[in-house]
Order: sequence, then C-alpha cells, then structure tokens
Amino acid sequence: MRYITAGESHGPQLTTIIEGVPSNLPFSVEKINAQLERRQKGHGRGRRMQIEKDQVKVLSGVRHGYTTGAPITLVVENNDWKHWQGIMSAEPVEDGEQRRRVSRPRPGHADLNGAIKYHQRDMRNILERSSARETTMRVAVGAVGRLLLEAFGITVAGQVLQIGEVKAERVELPIAEHIARTEESPVRCLDKQAEVLMMQAIDKAKEDGDSLGGLVEVRVEGVPIGLGSHVQWDRKLDGKLAQAVMSIQAFKGVEIGIGFEAAGRPGSQVHDAITWSKEEGYRRESNRAGGIEGGMTNGMPIIVRGVMKPIPTLYKPLMSVDIDTKEAFSASIERSDSCAVPAASVVAEAVVAWEIAQAMCEKFPSDSLDDMLENVRQYREYTERF
Amino acid sequence: MRYITAGESHGPQLTTIIEGVPSNLPFSVEKINAQLERRQKGHGRGRRMQIEKDQVKVLSGVRHGYTTGAPITLVVENNDWKHWQGIMSAEPVEDGEQRRRVSRPRPGHADLNGAIKYHQRDMRNILERSSARETTMRVAVGAVGRLLLEAFGITVAGQVLQIGEVKAERVELPIAEHIARTEESPVRCLDKQAEVLMMQAIDKAKEDGDSLGGLVEVRVEGVPIGLGSHVQWDRKLDGKLAQAVMSIQAFKGVEIGIGFEAAGRPGSQVHDAITWSKEEGYRRESNRAGGIEGGMTNGMPIIVRGVMKPIPTLYKPLMSVDIDTKEAFSASIERSDSCAVPAASVVAEAVVAWEIAQAMCEKFPSDSLDDMLENVRQYREYTERF
Amino acid sequence: MRYITAGESHGPQLTTIIEGVPSNLPFSVEKINAQLERRQKGHGRGRRMQIEKDQVKVLSGVRHGYTTGAPITLVVENNDWKHWQGIMSAEPVEDGEQRRRVSRPRPGHADLNGAIKYHQRDMRNILERSSARETTMRVAVGAVGRLLLEAFGITVAGQVLQIGEVKAERVELPIAEHIARTEESPVRCLDKQAEVLMMQAIDKAKEDGDSLGGLVEVRVEGVPIGLGSHVQWDRKLDGKLAQAVMSIQAFKGVEIGIGFEAAGRPGSQVHDAITWSKEEGYRRESNRAGGIEGGMTNGMPIIVRGVMKPIPTLYKPLMSVDIDTKEAFSASIERSDSCAVPAASVVAEAVVAWEIAQAMCEKFPSDSLDDMLENVRQYREYTERF
Amino acid sequence: MRYITAGESHGPQLTTIIEGVPSNLPFSVEKINAQLERRQKGHGRGRRMQIEKDQVKVLSGVRHGYTTGAPITLVVENNDWKHWQGIMSAEPVEDGEQRRRVSRPRPGHADLNGAIKYHQRDMRNILERSSARETTMRVAVGAVGRLLLEAFGITVAGQVLQIGEVKAERVELPIAEHIARTEESPVRCLDKQAEVLMMQAIDKAKEDGDSLGGLVEVRVEGVPIGLGSHVQWDRKLDGKLAQAVMSIQAFKGVEIGIGFEAAGRPGSQVHDAITWSKEEGYRRESNRAGGIEGGMTNGMPIIVRGVMKPIPTLYKPLMSVDIDTKEAFSASIERSDSCAVPAASVVAEAVVAWEIAQAMCEKFPSDSLDDMLENVRQYREYTERF
Repeated sequence: MRYITAGESHGPQLTTIIEGVPSNLPFSVEKINAQLERRQKGHGRGRRMQIEKDQVKVLSGVRHGYTTGAPITLVVENNDWKHWQGIMSAEPVEDGEQRRRVSRPRPGHADLNGAIKYHQRDMRNILERSSARETTMRVAVGAVGRLLLEAFGITVAGQVLQIGEVKAERVELPIAEHIARTEESPVRCLDKQAEVLMMQAIDKAKEDGDSLGGLVEVRVEGVPIGLGSHVQWDRKLDGKLAQAVMSIQAFKGVEIGIGFEAAGRPGSQVHDAITWSKEEGYRRESNRAGGIEGGMTNGMPIIVRGVMKPIPTLYKPLMSVDIDTKEAFSASIERSDSCAVPAASVVAEAVVAWEIAQAMCEKFPSDSLDDMLENVRQYREYTERF
Repeated sequence: MRYITAGESHGPQLTTIIEGVPSNLPFSVEKINAQLERRQKGHGRGRRMQIEKDQVKVLSGVRHGYTTGAPITLVVENNDWKHWQGIMSAEPVEDGEQRRRVSRPRPGHADLNGAIKYHQRDMRNILERSSARETTMRVAVGAVGRLLLEAFGITVAGQVLQIGEVKAERVELPIAEHIARTEESPVRCLDKQAEVLMMQAIDKAKEDGDSLGGLVEVRVEGVPIGLGSHVQWDRKLDGKLAQAVMSIQAFKGVEIGIGFEAAGRPGSQVHDAITWSKEEGYRRESNRAGGIEGGMTNGMPIIVRGVMKPIPTLYKPLMSVDIDTKEAFSASIERSDSCAVPAASVVAEAVVAWEIAQAMCEKFPSDSLDDMLENVRQYREYTERF
Repeated sequence: MRYITAGESHGPQLTTIIEGVPSNLPFSVEKINAQLERRQKGHGRGRRMQIEKDQVKVLSGVRHGYTTGAPITLVVENNDWKHWQGIMSAEPVEDGEQRRRVSRPRPGHADLNGAIKYHQRDMRNILERSSARETTMRVAVGAVGRLLLEAFGITVAGQVLQIGEVKAERVELPIAEHIARTEESPVRCLDKQAEVLMMQAIDKAKEDGDSLGGLVEVRVEGVPIGLGSHVQWDRKLDGKLAQAVMSIQAFKGVEIGIGFEAAGRPGSQVHDAITWSKEEGYRRESNRAGGIEGGMTNGMPIIVRGVMKPIPTLYKPLMSVDIDTKEAFSASIERSDSCAVPAASVVAEAVVAWEIAQAMCEKFPSDSLDDMLENVRQYREYTERF
Repeated sequence: MRYITAGESHGPQLTTIIEGVPSNLPFSVEKINAQLERRQKGHGRGRRMQIEKDQVKVLSGVRHGYTTGAPITLVVENNDWKHWQGIMSAEPVEDGEQRRRVSRPRPGHADLNGAIKYHQRDMRNILERSSARETTMRVAVGAVGRLLLEAFGITVAGQVLQIGEVKAERVELPIAEHIARTEESPVRCLDKQAEVLMMQAIDKAKEDGDSLGGLVEVRVEGVPIGLGSHVQWDRKLDGKLAQAVMSIQAFKGVEIGIGFEAAGRPGSQVHDAITWSKEEGYRRESNRAGGIEGGMTNGMPIIVRGVMKPIPTLYKPLMSVDIDTKEAFSASIERSDSCAVPAASVVAEAVVAWEIAQAMCEKFPSDSLDDMLENVRQYREYTERF
C-alpha cells in the first residue's frame, strides 16, 4: 500500500489517493467520518474546527460498499474555501490581489525554510501546504488502515499522557474500556484528575495568549508476530513507526515501549522474559519493549509515544524578520488553537494504524481480503503451534 | 543515493553496495577505517572488539582515489570466520553439524519473532543477521556520507549524554573542540566528571553481570537551509532521521531539538525567534527546534538524540523458553559487551550523516561532485541574499 | 517526481496527484486541456468522445498561475456519471441494482484475470479501472511534464506510422512543421497518401464490425546529454521509456531508434559515428540509436515507437465463457471506437514526455524552476566545452 | 524482492545483494553456476569467455543449503583482475599510470554520454561499468529467481529466433524438449537449418571484422493467473518485463505475444478466445497476447521477445572524436565477440525469470517458502474453481 496526500489549508479541498488496499474490504464512510470528527474535537480547539465539519467523499476504488482493489480517492472539502477563492486561485490574477503577499515568516513554522527552498517571496505558498490541516487526510488514510485492521481483530487506541506540565497517572484498562473512556474525555485522558488539570492548563494558556504541547500514546492490540523485519534497516517496523510519528506536524520525538527510560535502567530491568503456555503460545511477562523486538512485532501490544510541541502559531508572539524589508517584527497572529494535543493523539493513532496495516499487507497476501483473512488465520494457528 | 547491507555476524564478511554517490568524490579508505575503529572503541566493549579489527575493502565504484559514479561495494571481513566455517557454511552439511542448533530464544532479541516469521527452528539463522555486528556496515556507509558532507564543510559530531543513571552536564563547545574532546574520552562524553562516573557505572554493571544503555546526541553543523520538504509526509527530514536512528539495533527512542521537553513548555519557550543580519542572513536566536522546522533544515545545527537500551545479551539472564521442549530456562550467555553506548554514538553519527548526505543529493545536482559543489555554492549565496 | 492516478471509467471522476514538480513553473490549464482534446480527436473515435469533453480542474499545488512545489491534484469529471450513479455508487446498494452484474469476460481485456486476482464475481469492478479511459489522466500528467520540458526548449512530437495494413512513408520534417502537419491530420500521419488510405481502412473496419491497431512514434528534441544512467539496470532511461510505453493500455511492443531492425543489420550499419564541431559540440552522424546509448541520452532526438493492438472491444465478437454458468457465449459489445491509434499516439507522447521530465528532475536541481533553469544552462555550456 | 549489482568489467569482482528472497528456499550454487556457464557459451564468443570461467561465491543469506530470509550476497571474481590491478586500483596512483587514460569514445557505447554526465576525462571510468560484463550478475540474480520459480513448477526457456539476416522457422515443442534442444545448439536455436546458417553468418561477420545482433524469445510456463495488476501503470507486469528486457545492454526493443505484428492485424485476429473446461479451468484458444492481458498474467505461457543490436565494439570501426584533441579517429578496438546473441538469450531469460519471481513474491506471502507454497497451492485450487 502507498498513499500521497495533496491540498492546501485554504484551497478548495484536500485529496488523497491510496493504492494497494485489498479488495472486498467493507468500506464504511461513516467510520472514516467518525475518525475525522474525533480529530476535530478536544478541549482547546479554536474556531476553525467549528467552521470545518470534515466529511469525506469517496471518488474511486469503492463500489457498493466494498473496495475493488483499485486506487481509492478520498476528498475532504474546505468549507472555508468560498472566502479564499481569489487569494488561493490556481488562475493567474491581477496585481491587486497580489498585495496580500505573506512576507513575514512565523517562528516554528516551515515558512522561511520553505520559501527559501522553493524560491517563494509569498510565504502563503508554503504555509498553506505545511499547515496541520493536512493531518485531516492522514486521519482519513489511517481510518482506511483501521478498517483493514478491524477485519483482523486488531485494535488501535490512543491517549493523552501529558499536556503542558500536567502529567497523567498511568491507567491500565482493557482496550475496549480504554477507548470508551478516552472518547468521553475532552482531552483524551484516562486519568480523571489529570483531565481536569489539563483543561485548566489549556484555559490558562489561552488566557495568557500562549499554547501547550503534550505527550500522546498509541496502543495496538492483536497484531500477529513477525510484522516488520530484522534483515534490513529500512524494513524494521520500529523505524517505520518512528518516521510516521515524527512526520506529524509539530512532533519532535517518538519512543517505543519504555523508550527513553531505557537509558537509565540496567539490562535486567529492560528486557521481557519469554513464557509459553499451551493456550496462548509465546508471551512476554512484561512489555517494556512495546511489542517490538529486532524490528519485528512480538505479539504483545505495540506501544508508541510521540511528543507534540505547542502550536507555533502564537497569540504571544516571538520576534521575526520581514523578508522584504528585513525589519524585525512581532510574529503575526493567525486564528488558531491553544492546544491541539487531543487531536494529535487521533493523528498519531491514524499514522500508527496505517503503518501496521501496511505491514500486514506486506507480510500476508493482500490482493483480496478473502485471501488475506484465510492466510492470517493459518499463520496464527501456526504461530501457536510453533 | 540508496544502499543495502548484507552479511551475518559470524559469516565470512559484511557487504554493502552504495548506489548514487556523486562521481569525483575523493575517497579515503583511511577515513572509513577510522570510523570503523571509532565504533570498536569505548569503555565497556567486550573481547570481540579485539578479535575483529575492522578494515574495509573497496571492490567497486572507486578508481585512483575518486568515486566514478558507479555503485560502491564495501566489504569488511569477519576475522573470526575461520572458526565458524562449518556452522555458518552456505553448503548443505551432514547431520552432525546441525546439532548445534539454537533452540533457545534470548529475551530482547529478534530470535523468537524472526524464527516464527521466517519458519526457522534454528534461531542462529535469525540472530546472525539481527546482530548489532551489522552496524559495522552502517558506519561504513555513514563514513561515505561523511566524505560527501566534508566536501561541503558540513561537520557531524556525536556525544554520550547518559549511561545508566549517570547523566552528563551539557557542555557547549565549538564543534572542532567538541570532536577532539569526545575522541579522547573513553565514553565519548564532554563532561569530565560524568565521564569518570560513567566508567565506574560500566565497571559495576560488568561485575554485576548486568549491562547499561544510555543516551547519545548527534550534532550536524553547516547544513544549507531547505533540506527535506514540508510537502509530503515521507519527504520530511525529521521523519527520515527518526527512521534512521530508530532502526539502529537496540534503539528505543529518538528526539530532535528539545524533543520530549517540548511537552512541558509553553509555546513561548519552545520556538526560536528569527533574526537577520547582512553578514549571516537568517538565523534563529535559539535552537530548540534542533535545526528542523516544517520537515526542513533551517540552517541551524541539527540536533538528534537517540536512546539505546542495555545490550540484551545478559550475563544476568532472564527467563525464556526452549522452542523444542517448551521448557523454561535461564537465557543463555553469548560473549558480549556490558555497555555499547559509546559505540552507539558513532553508529548514530553515521546514520545521521548518511541521511543528511542523502538529502543533499536530493536537493542538489548529484551526478558529479563538480556540479554539486558549484550549485551548492550558488545556493548558499542566494540564501544569504534572500 | 511521482504520480498516482485513480478513478473508474464510469465513476464520478478521474484523479491524479503529482508530486515533486518544481515550483514557479508557469501552469497553463489551457495547455493541459489542449492535450486532453488532442486525445479525444482522431478518425475512428466512437460516440463517447463526443459525450465526454474532458476538462481538467486544478485542485492543489498551483497558485496564481504558478506551481508552488506542493503536490498537484488534477481532476477530470466524467460527464456520463449522472447515468451511472446507482451502478457505480460507493454506497451499499439494494439487491435489485446488483442484477446488472458483469459475468461475461471479454477476450483481450483484464476482465477475467482481474476478477480472479481480486476475487470479484462482478467484472465491472475490474473493467471500470482497466479501461483505457485511464489514459486521460496519463495525458494530463504528461501535459504537466510537457510544461516543464517547454521551459527548457525540449519538444515532444508524435506521429502515426501504421494503421492496420497501411504503412506511412517516413517523412522527415523540422519538428515545428512535423507538429503542425500531424495536428491537421485526422490520423496524425505525415504521409498524405497513407493518411487517406488509413481513413479508408478505419471506415472499412467499422463497416465490418472490426477494429484496427497500429504503430506510433514519439520524437523528443532538445534533451541534454546524460539523462538516465548506465550504472544500474533500473536507472537506464531506455528501460524506463519501455516500461512507460508498454504500460499503456493495449500496447504490446516498444522499440527505440531502429529497434527491431537492428537484428538484421551488421554492426557497421547500426552504430552512429561521433563528430565534433566548435559550434555544436558532439553530434552523431546518424541517429540509429534513437538518442540513447548506454541507457543515457546522447543529445540526439529520442525516437521511441510503440505498437497498439486493435481495441479488444469488438463488434465482431470472439467466444468467451460466462463465469457463473460456464456457458460459452459470443463476447458482448460495449460502445467503442473502431480505431484509437491516433489517440494512442497522443498518450504515447504523454508518457514519454513524463519520463523525460522526470529524468530532467533527477539530473538537475528541481525544487524550483529558477534553480533548474540556471543549472541546465550551465550544464549545456559545460557540455559544449567538454 | 530487490537487488543492486556492482562491479567493473576489469575490477576485482562483480557483486550483487539480493533482498527479500523467501527463507527455506533450497539454494544450489551448482544451478547458479550452470546459468553463468550458459551465458559464456555460444558460437561467436570471443577470447574473454575462455579467460573468465565464472563461478559464484555465496557470502551471506544462505546457510546449510537453504536461504534464511537475510540478504544474499553473490560474488563473481574477475580472473583477469591480476593484470589490471594498477589500472583499476581504488587507491590513488602516481602520474605514470594515469597515462593510459581513455580519451576516445566508441560509437554505440555509453562512453561519451557517461563521461559528460559524470565529469570524467578518462572514459575507462564509464566503460568499465557500462560493459555487458555486468550481465553476469543479472544472470546470477535471475538464477536465484529461477530457484524460486522451480519450487512452483514454473519453467523459463529461451531461444534465438534470428541472427543477422538469418531467421529461424518457428518450432513449437513441449518446454522440456525445447530446453534440451536449445541447450545442444551452439546458437540456442530450435530450427536446425537456421542454426547452420546462423553459425555461418557469425563466421562470415568475424572474417569481415563485423558483428551481428539478433532476436531472442523467452517463454515462461506454469505461472498462476493474476500476477501484475491493472490498477496502476507502474504495477503492470508487461511494463515491468519491458523495462527489464530493454535495460539489458545493447537491447533496442521488446515485444510481448504477437507484439509488433498486432499493428497490421484486424482485432478479430488478435485477441484470444476464452474457454473453460472442468479439468483445466479457464484457458485461451490461442496465445497472441503472450500470456498477459490487462497488465496481468492470464495463465497461458508468457512470451517476450527482445532485440539485441550487434555488439558495438567493432573490428570494422566507425569514426569518432578524441575528447582531448577533438581530432577524428577510427574507433579503437577492444577484444570482443562477433556475436553475443546466444548469450543474450540467457540474459533475457534471467531478467524475465527475476520479474516473474518478483511478481510471485508480491502476490503471495513470501517471508518463507513454506507459507508461499501452501498459499500458491490454495490459490491454484481456487483459480480452478472460479
């Protein structure tokens, strides 16, 4: 499977083409829209989330409720587009319109680097594409990955572990309950006390004209043993997960299992003892590895965390420089959220779901769901007997 | 550029083919060997490092001291191979030899997952390839990347920030001095006091039959603005760096700039103000972004950190299960190091160097160093004028 | 650069996302539409060509008449869609609709192979995607490639050399005149006498309920020396051109330069003598190689020919088998053209244009047209001095 | 699966790394060497074929006669290397050696294009890599592909159909007999009369100081239905085969099934009627499509032909230009064959075998031969029942 996304933040639409999805997969537009809706919720989102109620259109690759094996085109229209038609027009325009050129790069954004790289004096040509609005499509793509995982009883769940200085206590729940609880939480947090504090911190940041980042975790249960591979660096599943998570807008770090804690622990407290029972086959007594050893899944839940920096668009601005006048200025304000960490948790789920779905398609015959289901069933039996 | 590595830990040799290196690059075998030697040093390495004095052979793609544009073959022979010829033979063998089958998977290794994935009852067929011995070739590949970076005045430096519970104080030095100091340190640490404590901790772990992980940092100075891209998730440089680092054996996390600290800071203390001066062009007042904004370099030093778990091969073993008898056992001991963090620092430098070199070749015309040097020079001038 | 196309023949639209096009390329919707129109013309096209007047919508990656470096989304709507909404709906449908299932595979189509591969009992799920309607998007993509080539003075021209048994005499013209003449010819043929005979042959085939294939040639002038590479099999430009042309629906062969004639000639009449003059630099006295030696361009015009089989949809049907009843039947008739060779010539131009544009972007710095123009200019100077 | 080859014609060795070969494949060095030997035979080969008796060394990825899933390193040493050590040394050399610089490009070779592209004034740096010596590794890689195909009862056979002006009559034989007969023929031709004439033509060309090209055909029997795909241009199997064959040194054309003949025939004589029987399932009454419809296999034998131009190294030289003096000269003679078409037939088999093996690995679960065998068996049963 592969996909490309396209579209600008204030352009007519976002588009993705997804290639290589198995045929005969039940394709639910409602489930994809439900994921898009999850991305738009969360305490701390700004006004735009109300303007844009994202809905996907399926324009190829699906017929009568099932995938056909052909490439899938998904589109999410930008409702706001009507107000931006002139500014964002693909057609040549008269000079007047051009005056609204963006010459002031915002710190923490792609603006200046992109402008230099792509020879743009109007940084709107950069920021429209670098915007986190693009994560809408990554959520849509991930939702397709989830449809596939669902068929194999693989579940993906996210949670927010930290917002600003507020850290949640770790709460271990069966995954269904875990999901139910985070869905009810305005900050996708399992720790009820932290939830309240997180919301307060967000409100406070908003008042202060500041923004908050945080820590999110994704958990995947039900994966077969042996996704990914140890044989070549670019086939290791942990490497792919790291790329997927780090490539989310505003993410600055990623870790698997105990992650950075591993630096400080002795080896005897890092690895997971292997056990075996007739009923369950091989298991690990603990899951410090986060479900991945040697670049491959070991059958335990996959645990990936990512850190999101505070949204760089600031009400409390940093200094920057106008590229035309070279004069310093206080970085301009665009309408924005004060905290997007709950949404980022949904995006992280999506990119992880996609990578696991992709790894499933690489390991198993994936032209058609029929073949794939049967082959995975046989492999799971074999795994238990191994 | 692209590369594949091959070879088993106790096979005859490790091999890599590197494709797409610009022609006319001065190719110094000595410099590559120097990198291989750096990987083998460090307080805490075991006996094997003395057995194998790694030396590279250049078997294609280089002539009379310069690359030709043709694929480069590098080989490092395993000196130990003479003792393993029967066990590791490619040829069919008599039953007797087969008795030495490995049926006992080690916790924290690829052994069991790989055996299941690849249908192997002899886990030697997995562990020989999943071994960190493979990092030898990644260092060699990275050394080729460094030769290229050198031509553009780009410098890569590593350091160890933590081993076990011992954390170094951050020391900021000019990069040449930084390199000189870490080269002299048996644990590649800039903080002299921490250095002593780290060595003690390693010795203690060894006595206890335990092992230690740690934290390493790579710094790259002199990169042009605009490597990587914001336009598509899989072209973002931070994502590629994350994959490269996470795919190093035993690495469990990666972060860029202030990384995980970004979760707890308000936005006003996360982003880097933009300045401009006639002499230097655009700069950032701070470098919390670690040199990457919007998936692209911003011209500031690239800062990447990775965490290595303690070496899973343990003198103080964990429980595991024999795959033949299904009986529990105390995981077997293979000769090993008690701490490989200083070496891991060299490996991390190598994979980062490669990614930056690769990004350079993508941005600039890279058939020949001649073209590339001239184009980079022009681009840097343009950047200053922008 | 890379692209994916999507869309079904009777679905709502065809879509493509094109990634990696240099920024600041003047982007003319008119020129793309002109190419789409060329594909729809030609003696022998059926009724559908009148129904669907293809027009492209640009939905991302272009602003105010120039590319921005961001991915470009192009859409061509199927005007016919309104009559197919139920049959082609992505939504689950009631049983009634399902009755129109296609259970009768047409010889010479993907129908049966695709149905087996993708586990489809309704072959509409295959034929909608395998349809040559998809070439619309390849022409659109190729038109973007042409915009780029134009900026470098590279010209692409096609012609029809044979339709059915009618072969054209070879006519050598300056490329501008060549283009003008083929644009005026209803069969895109330079030989006026053959033109008449071709049209007669097409009319005759139509009367007979039969169809005709033919031979097309694409010529590219103005390419720099050294596109492609000899160093690795998958980087050879001739190999890429061969894949591009052979992957056009209904194409069964591809040749470069004198192509299959090379089998029968002695070496002394196959290769092209090298000359040099102060004014022009290196040239070849002849162009039997078709502009490519050693997998690279040599600066002479690129000459690629492809053969198209007669359209498999037949008024004069072949026998086939119903997959439900296993009964033999005379293959069903879908509305169709009797000869699509003139259109195929336009498609072949498009895929060749794309490959050359792609090869340009690989050889030269392609983030921005500004950089690329300057670098190509310098390279051409260097080439003349070599 | 993927592979890269490396190595110069007169360097120490040729190397390839092959990635993604299923584990547990019986790996026979003898069978690979047998293929290498086939490449070296044939009426018309020059002296070098006697110097270099190619033998493969297996340096990774295989243990005790079976693949392990790890990357496979294959090496063929150049026996001639001892005489070329100074000229081809990777080490910097004294000026004296440099005098043997090649400044005279041969027509029909990569020499001049490559020298310009890669900024080389010594064209040895190009010709050493562009040499057809590289096909040795493609045969080795193809031989690994054949080992895999063999496990599934898929057979690959080649033949020579034309050498110079001598064309063979088409002889249809059961594939085992076909193979036996071509193995006995010094020109790999099934038509005994043509065989004699071909040998005479080769001898005559040699006397005349000229060289001959020809036409080769590869036939693959036993392939499952549905390899390749119709859904995206770059996944079509015919496109991949075309790239593979066209990328062979000196090949100028490729066709599938009736290929270029399709231009002249009416549709009713081009497509293959579909039949069905309880015993065999779906078949085609004829095989004009050459086993591929809609970019996918249809279960009939795959038929691919390629044309090889006469070897460009000429005893009867063409004019060229010295790049230093710009003086015209009569192109220099390197030791060479007068006809390499029989060998080219073996190379064509190899690249086709690889593409089919690769397509098998894409369609079926290919981590381990065990899984793959079982899944292919089930798929074939399903195919018969469809």
